[in-house]
Amino acid sequence: MILGNSDFAEFLRGKQGTFFLSLSNTKTANIPGITQAGIPGMIHLTPTLDAEFLCTGEVRSLTNIATTPKGVPTPGLITRAVHLLHPFSTLALLDLGLEVKPKVDYFPLYDFGINPSGSIDTGANIDAMELFEKGVEFAEEYFCRNDYIILGESVPSGTTTALATALALGYDTHDKFSSSFKNAPTDTKQRVVTQALSGCEGIEGLFEKLSRVSDNMLVFNAGLVLGFQKRKIKTVLAGGTQMAALLLVINSIAQQMGESIKGGNLALCTTKWVYEDPNSDIKGLLEMVSFPVHAYYVDFDFSLTSHPALKLYDEGEAKEGVGAGGALMYACLNGVTKEEITHKVESFLQ
Amino acid sequence: MILGNSDFAEFLRGKQGTFFLSLSNTKTANIPGITQAGIPGMIHLTPTLDAEFLCTGEVRSLTNIATTPKGVPTPGLITRAVHLLHPFSTLALLDLGLEVKPKVDYFPLYDFGINPSGSIDTGANIDAMELFEKGVEFAEEYFCRNDYIILGESVPSGTTTALATALALGYDTHDKFSSSFKNAPTDTKQRVVTQALSGCEGIEGLFEKLSRVSDNMLVFNAGLVLGFQKRKIKTVLAGGTQMAALLLVINSIAQQMGESIKGGNLALCTTKWVYEDPNSDIKGLLEMVSFPVHAYYVDFDFSLTSHPALKLYDEGEAKEGVGAGGALMYACLNGVTKEEITHKVESFLQ
Repeated sequence: MILGNSDFAEFLRGKQGTFFLSLSNTKTANIPGITQAGIPGMIHLTPTLDAEFLCTGEVRSLTNIATTPKGVPTPGLITRAVHLLHPFSTLALLDLGLEVKPKVDYFPLYDFGINPSGSIDTGANIDAMELFEKGVEFAEEYFCRNDYIILGESVPSGTTTALATALALGYDTHDKFSSSFKNAPTDTKQRVVTQALSGCEGIEGLFEKLSRVSDNMLVFNAGLVLGFQKRKIKTVLAGGTQMAALLLVINSIAQQMGESIKGGNLALCTTKWVYEDPNSDIKGLLEMVSFPVHAYYVDFDFSLTSHPALKLYDEGEAKEGVGAGGALMYACLNGVTKEEITHKVESFLQ
Repeated sequence: MILGNSDFAEFLRGKQGTFFLSLSNTKTANIPGITQAGIPGMIHLTPTLDAEFLCTGEVRSLTNIATTPKGVPTPGLITRAVHLLHPFSTLALLDLGLEVKPKVDYFPLYDFGINPSGSIDTGANIDAMELFEKGVEFAEEYFCRNDYIILGESVPSGTTTALATALALGYDTHDKFSSSFKNAPTDTKQRVVTQALSGCEGIEGLFEKLSRVSDNMLVFNAGLVLGFQKRKIKTVLAGGTQMAALLLVINSIAQQMGESIKGGNLALCTTKWVYEDPNSDIKGLLEMVSFPVHAYYVDFDFSLTSHPALKLYDEGEAKEGVGAGGALMYACLNGVTKEEITHKVESFLQ
């Protein structure tokens, strides 16, 4: 537990979950050294491959490259393992500006006509108001067949755009953000964020700021989550500091709109790796949100494996993504054990 | 995977399945030596007992006989094991001409006023057009509460009637059909099929041929499946060469009616024992279907048991039936392991 009480999670025990994976590209990820979430030179494919692997167990949009992830494996392995052990009742993809669409049949792939966003050092170039409204509208119209929604994301360099977003909105979040690196590339990241913020100088409007320094995932999902809350659809934000930043965006928008959020139908769930990360402070971020939030981390690590690629997680080299934290919570709430998850993840790497 | 792609199956992961068991008697089964699907002298009871056991775990329509199956145990044990480990959301029985109705309360037992069909060597005596229309009508009216339908069958001597049916419709399927025997009784079977086909000589009409050489399961389900496809209800044909023959019947009827089938909502799933059977060729049968079909086999065997009756499966003595292949797929898509299924099946034989 990070904040709130356990009742929200306990209530969801045994219930049917819909997993939404929100997918987006920001050109910020093309800045050399800003992220390690993916294959060098092909970072833009990461959300596409994550979606393919989660749905089908195969990566299809790569050619001339082995189909097993190398180096630090994507946290999508954890989410897929959970889906195999206790499947999500519905699995759906949100295309929030992908360069390459995932090659999957049957699975819903919602297309909102969104383009990849620009690099925040020169301007993200998002129409934030329109994007936010698209999120609200989708939430209003969506027919939820299950009991709750787990919302994950795959956005390379998303922690950088999240940090810039939170700072631009006036939250003092320096040193509170996680990274896909163990030793977060503070210099590069700092330079990019500083440049992004300097582009914001003199801009007063909330949505104008978001248009300049944010990413599609944060802006669209702010609308989506607000829409779900209005309909009292229980939602678990599956992620770490990026999802905390999403809560900060929601907080700012709600304040501006004069809306109060009860928070009773909203929680965040992340991994132990994020919670224990000495280089970030998810609890500190969540405490800046002025409405009550339930926040959890799942007591899962790779202590039961000897696979070197997975050990990197316990060493802090990878922490969260593709909704791994929320997926682990879903596993936990449905009787799946740490041993089972570990063995299933190992089976992907053989 | 036998044909198509994995996405159809992956999409069904975690979704709620309805299991239909179609039950029928054909007097073909009374021909000595034609089938070993059941207790000698009581072969006609097999579908009745399969239905009872699947629904309740008991066989009720047998007297003076131990309630555990002897010799090669029915593949219904596998389907029942799956139903215990991860229950079908709905379990329903289709009486397509039973001599003895199963003694079960509560479970839907759909009665269409169908009589057992005749022996194909002298004429099955089916009103195929009427039976087909009953299937279509049922599909049109059926309210499906779940996400998809798994359609299994229990029809003693059904591989013989399936072979005769496919040949009568002009498919060159000699040597492609499976049997409940390891060493299929080629002589008896061949003689019966030859006699059945000679009774078809001079008959041109598709439904007239079916009336003469087919069985109720194939004809009714052709209508049922076509009806479900029209309504886009996802359907998994749970079975081996008999279900492949069903696809051939559907293929011929659709061609005659000038209807094209997209196949996007239809798959076949069978066991590894059928897929690897050297005496039949399910892939060859499926390749004769002119619309696209997804077809899968499940990588399950009894290598984890030492029970001699179950080892007979791995030795090719029994292969499929009572929807075992589709049930194994359902298990697989819901996180049930080979170990769990094996232990559960073993528990029935103790």
